[in-house]
Amino acid sequence: MKPLKLHVFTLFPEMFEGVLGSSILGKAEQKELVSYHIVNFREYAQNKHSQVDDYPYGGGGGMILKPEPLFHAVEDVLGFTPHKSQKKRPRIILLCPQGEPYTQAKAEELAQEDELLFICGHYEGYDERIRTHLVTDEISIGDYVLTGGELASMVIIDSVVRLREGALGNEQSAKTDSYSTGLLEYPQYTRPADFDGMKVPDVLLSGHHANIEEWRRKESLFRTWQRRRDLLESYSLSEQEKAWIAEFEKTQTSE
Amino acid sequence: MKPLKLHVFTLFPEMFEGVLGSSILGKAEQKELVSYHIVNFREYAQNKHSQVDDYPYGGGGGMILKPEPLFHAVEDVLGFTPHKSQKKRPRIILLCPQGEPYTQAKAEELAQEDELLFICGHYEGYDERIRTHLVTDEISIGDYVLTGGELASMVIIDSVVRLREGALGNEQSAKTDSYSTGLLEYPQYTRPADFDGMKVPDVLLSGHHANIEEWRRKESLFRTWQRRRDLLESYSLSEQEKAWIAEFEKTQTSE
Repeated sequence: MKPLKLHVFTLFPEMFEGVLGSSILGKAEQKELVSYHIVNFREYAQNKHSQVDDYPYGGGGGMILKPEPLFHAVEDVLGFTPHKSQKKRPRIILLCPQGEPYTQAKAEELAQEDELLFICGHYEGYDERIRTHLVTDEISIGDYVLTGGELASMVIIDSVVRLREGALGNEQSAKTDSYSTGLLEYPQYTRPADFDGMKVPDVLLSGHHANIEEWRRKESLFRTWQRRRDLLESYSLSEQEKAWIAEFEKTQTSE
Repeated sequence: MKPLKLHVFTLFPEMFEGVLGSSILGKAEQKELVSYHIVNFREYAQNKHSQVDDYPYGGGGGMILKPEPLFHAVEDVLGFTPHKSQKKRPRIILLCPQGEPYTQAKAEELAQEDELLFICGHYEGYDERIRTHLVTDEISIGDYVLTGGELASMVIIDSVVRLREGALGNEQSAKTDSYSTGLLEYPQYTRPADFDGMKVPDVLLSGHHANIEEWRRKESLFRTWQRRRDLLESYSLSEQEKAWIAEFEKTQTSE
């Protein structure tokens, strides 16, 4: 598998070092599964104060990122002018509140690519021509306001890199398989069996595998039913699970 | 206003420096609006290999974070033992996929506090007693899998700190006001009016304020209608806006 090439365009390159250098992301680079290329696009501002933003046409507060520095920075990485070329451009992702809400399905899709570019504005807005003529994807990691796209790009990079073959060790990948059931994970316990009076449920200490398995399936369903009923809409319930839910509903009513 | 005290419990303290030291988050600390305290909870492991995780009771893959190191690390910060005390504990937030989905409303709620604690597991699971007896909130920043809670805690810190009085300069806060309308933002443009053949819409160059205002309201509605129809469910449409949506629907059908 070819290494995944990641390019990030930002005015705050110093934000990335600690995150991309540590843990799974750092190891993935050491193992040459991925390469990180952080570009300060202020270097592409062609004016004497290296200005990258300007006032919006039509008035209003806030500053807007100018198109030229970003177009030129991306062009320099690609080796061609995307808005004038028929060449297929790699995915160029704009992090913004107006973007498509990010999901695990999108992470899996992006993990198939060989090269990804991320454009991070800070508190400024983006000139619309960046959206219409430069980027291929606009993504929002959630409905909350951040000061910039930097953390959002790190979140996406983390979720994508861990899906690349070889990025996770065995212990880690075994663990994360549990996310793929469509339900929230059941409660987990480790030693000590009694910590300051707080005890591990007896069933987990019983050694009875069928009972443990059933307890986990029921707890996983209960947690999902209690906290994220929306996830059950796209989940196909077995007869046993339907009976359990009837039981949860009865308990709730009688309380 | 008292500074907001933020404590983060993590096994990867080196991930935080670049993010908390830069831009708005770094300036907020310099202005003493906030203090950051990063705790490596491995220092609280009371065994000879400083082991913080262990195998799950009942079998299965993956490692589980042991309760003792986290309980003791939190206790040390609070100055009392939370599960044995009647004293009110500050908000102790566990970052996990099973948590409540994070929203701007939650950011606004957390921004009212004086002190927040964040517990970041990495690829390990959490011993259930951490959920039931230590934390006050469980939060998920979105339905995607991350290698740890570190980036999620930074996302929350960023969204909360920027809401504290004095954290944003005037230019920045003016900009972010636009999020509060309940609709996605309208397209923005800045100079040059013609960049390599890509032009700014005439209306924005017209100087006609009423037309500009109307264009922006309609574009904002159009973008929301096109990309995030779910947001319109909790938005109260004016008669004018209802007419515009009828127009969008007609255009779509005739295409």
